[in-house]
Amino acid sequence: MSDDQQRRLLRKMLEAAIDAATPSKLIKAHLPPKPAGRTIVLGAGKASAAMAREVEEHMPGQIEGLIVTRYGHAVSCDKIEIVEAAHPVPDEAGRSAAARMLKLAESANAEDLVLCLISGGASALLSLPSDGISLEDKQALNKALLECGADITQMNTVRKHLSAIKGGRLAAAAHPAKTVSLLISDVPGDDPAVIGSGPTVPDPTTFDDARDVLAHFGIKGPKSVTDHLNAGGEETPKPDDPRLADNEVHMIATPQASLEAAVAIALDHGIRPVVLGDSIEGEARDVAKVMAGIARQVRNHAQPAMAPCVLLSGGETTVTVKGKGRGGRNAEFLLALAVQLAGADDIYALAADTDGIDGSEDNAGAIVTPDTLERAAAMDLNAMTLLSDNDGYSFFEKLEDLIKTGPTLTNVNDFRAILIL
Amino acid sequence: MSDDQQRRLLRKMLEAAIDAATPSKLIKAHLPPKPAGRTIVLGAGKASAAMAREVEEHMPGQIEGLIVTRYGHAVSCDKIEIVEAAHPVPDEAGRSAAARMLKLAESANAEDLVLCLISGGASALLSLPSDGISLEDKQALNKALLECGADITQMNTVRKHLSAIKGGRLAAAAHPAKTVSLLISDVPGDDPAVIGSGPTVPDPTTFDDARDVLAHFGIKGPKSVTDHLNAGGEETPKPDDPRLADNEVHMIATPQASLEAAVAIALDHGIRPVVLGDSIEGEARDVAKVMAGIARQVRNHAQPAMAPCVLLSGGETTVTVKGKGRGGRNAEFLLALAVQLAGADDIYALAADTDGIDGSEDNAGAIVTPDTLERAAAMDLNAMTLLSDNDGYSFFEKLEDLIKTGPTLTNVNDFRAILIL
Repeated sequence: MSDDQQRRLLRKMLEAAIDAATPSKLIKAHLPPKPAGRTIVLGAGKASAAMAREVEEHMPGQIEGLIVTRYGHAVSCDKIEIVEAAHPVPDEAGRSAAARMLKLAESANAEDLVLCLISGGASALLSLPSDGISLEDKQALNKALLECGADITQMNTVRKHLSAIKGGRLAAAAHPAKTVSLLISDVPGDDPAVIGSGPTVPDPTTFDDARDVLAHFGIKGPKSVTDHLNAGGEETPKPDDPRLADNEVHMIATPQASLEAAVAIALDHGIRPVVLGDSIEGEARDVAKVMAGIARQVRNHAQPAMAPCVLLSGGETTVTVKGKGRGGRNAEFLLALAVQLAGADDIYALAADTDGIDGSEDNAGAIVTPDTLERAAAMDLNAMTLLSDNDGYSFFEKLEDLIKTGPTLTNVNDFRAILIL
Repeated sequence: MSDDQQRRLLRKMLEAAIDAATPSKLIKAHLPPKPAGRTIVLGAGKASAAMAREVEEHMPGQIEGLIVTRYGHAVSCDKIEIVEAAHPVPDEAGRSAAARMLKLAESANAEDLVLCLISGGASALLSLPSDGISLEDKQALNKALLECGADITQMNTVRKHLSAIKGGRLAAAAHPAKTVSLLISDVPGDDPAVIGSGPTVPDPTTFDDARDVLAHFGIKGPKSVTDHLNAGGEETPKPDDPRLADNEVHMIATPQASLEAAVAIALDHGIRPVVLGDSIEGEARDVAKVMAGIARQVRNHAQPAMAPCVLLSGGETTVTVKGKGRGGRNAEFLLALAVQLAGADDIYALAADTDGIDGSEDNAGAIVTPDTLERAAAMDLNAMTLLSDNDGYSFFEKLEDLIKTGPTLTNVNDFRAILIL
């Protein structure tokens, strides 16, 4: 294969991964039958406006509804209202949309269908604190929990007991209407109760559990939050709650499904796929070190698989910014990978965010070839120096190796492929 | 299997990995025939005194020689002198031993055999700067090279042209005697020219190359160093150098061979071995995140292998110390892994330094079981807090989960095994 062929193959894998998460290719097959009454479409997330448009396209009968998506992620719809709000820090636009959404759910009757479209980002976009708690106080608590190392289960236990819409409350409000939820997962493990803090999924946790989490970490405020948790109040709907008995939840796209789409492309091309994980996390440059180590092992010892093979992974890396450069976590990962591979023959790599936006730049990701460092050196670009400055974007921009897809209006996190021939 | 059985299985894998690198089990099979003349044993490294003792045990005929090892790594020998010196920063004891070693090599004649025993740490222990360069100046240059991100090839190109003993010069000095080198590798790729900067291995690089490296990084001093490189002088022996034509180099232990020993144990127990790499690097807690991600993938998607399986890896992680706790990189890796796995069922892990010393403590490593976090919580040990304080040793000490082997007098870096049932 020529250099161009490897590049094309990697891009093809990325396209397949994104396609496997694209609403226009997924929604139709998952639509429930037309109800006797109205179809009320509700939802939140970065992909949810694009999902709503597909519903309008393919769902027969009377449709209305309200979707909240991130600023810049709106898609024009005829029947469903699309509202934009802030992410990841909630704002008033999101709060007010969530309140109206709850009212719409409450207006549904037994003949109606409430169709919920939930995707990554829904938790922040669908922020409706319980009475007496301000967005700021809820935010302060979130921050405190994060800082003492609460895990996602603990975070959600508390969140769901400070919210008027999460932890199944939206579905309970829609009762006696049937609720069908279509979900796009961007969380490790693809637990529906975690995506957007599960507005339509029963919640086994209690106010007691939420208080225990705060006590465990010694968190004493804000006062409005502790007052609310101590007072108790209406519990989240439990798994045996009859109001949620008839609900359906369908996961229509996951990081794993996108990796499997890339697996199919690899197999088509006689390349052995090695899926390392759909939720690989860690500091981008260290994840790159580990991946380079695995690539070396393939090369030197034909383990864990024999070349030609492709190491596939998803999940979100992180970047601890110390420099002043440009670029998201995928550019940083790839720059570190190039340094680690040090021009190893016949190893190519692509990493990109499936939402089409790596960090806050205009690229989805970039590509590394065996001669990346050599071409950089010829342009007087020092990879180590740019890596120290977190300047992956500039590095790959100058090499003309950025990958630009534009916003894809979906998100199943990052996609990484390391091709070893 | 009961909990005890998993622990025993993991320990058995570690023991097999260490055994595969232990001089007493390796040297005899690799000894060359007795020469007509003397056998002169020279060498440097953490394992080299233990190697020398085995030579005394099994090599017939007249033996003499000199070995330099790290402080605390001496093993008593009858015929071969053992000297201790500083590592990783060279000291005068090492310099003077290296000078005497070179003289001994020069004293060899055509009937003699020079048997070189090289293991990890040899580069620092065998430090003999060229005339006119002080240890301090050489050290300052090393530091400058490291800071501008020179890779191991660039470092060695320069080092070998500032040394009177490295880059094949020791073997050249021994000519016309035959040189046989027995090597224990602790470097990625197991290149004999890299282990201890290859005192008995021909060096294709030149003074020109060394000057180019300094120019490339804009390094202008110390003056004694640049003067020496500019003056040139006697080149290192090249691959076609007749003085090294008859030399033999045998790699008797490698990180990979130790992993393969663990593979054999796994197969014996019906466990699928997945070797991820013999030289996995990166910040310990981030390597743990990636490994936890791969373990989750095994559990959730039977990729890259189906359980029961064991993820095996070697190499050296690093720890950026921010806290005040105790513990080496393996304890840190395991504590982070326990946090990441969050009590996942049926996942056990062991990580240890094959030299028997994790950092500067008295343990080789530790062990993680599915109930590690639960047992810790019952003792009021917060894993996250101890991890923030780099206090892995205290964590596993209190759980009585440290693994102590004592110094093994060999080193093929770390050994990690994650068992997923």
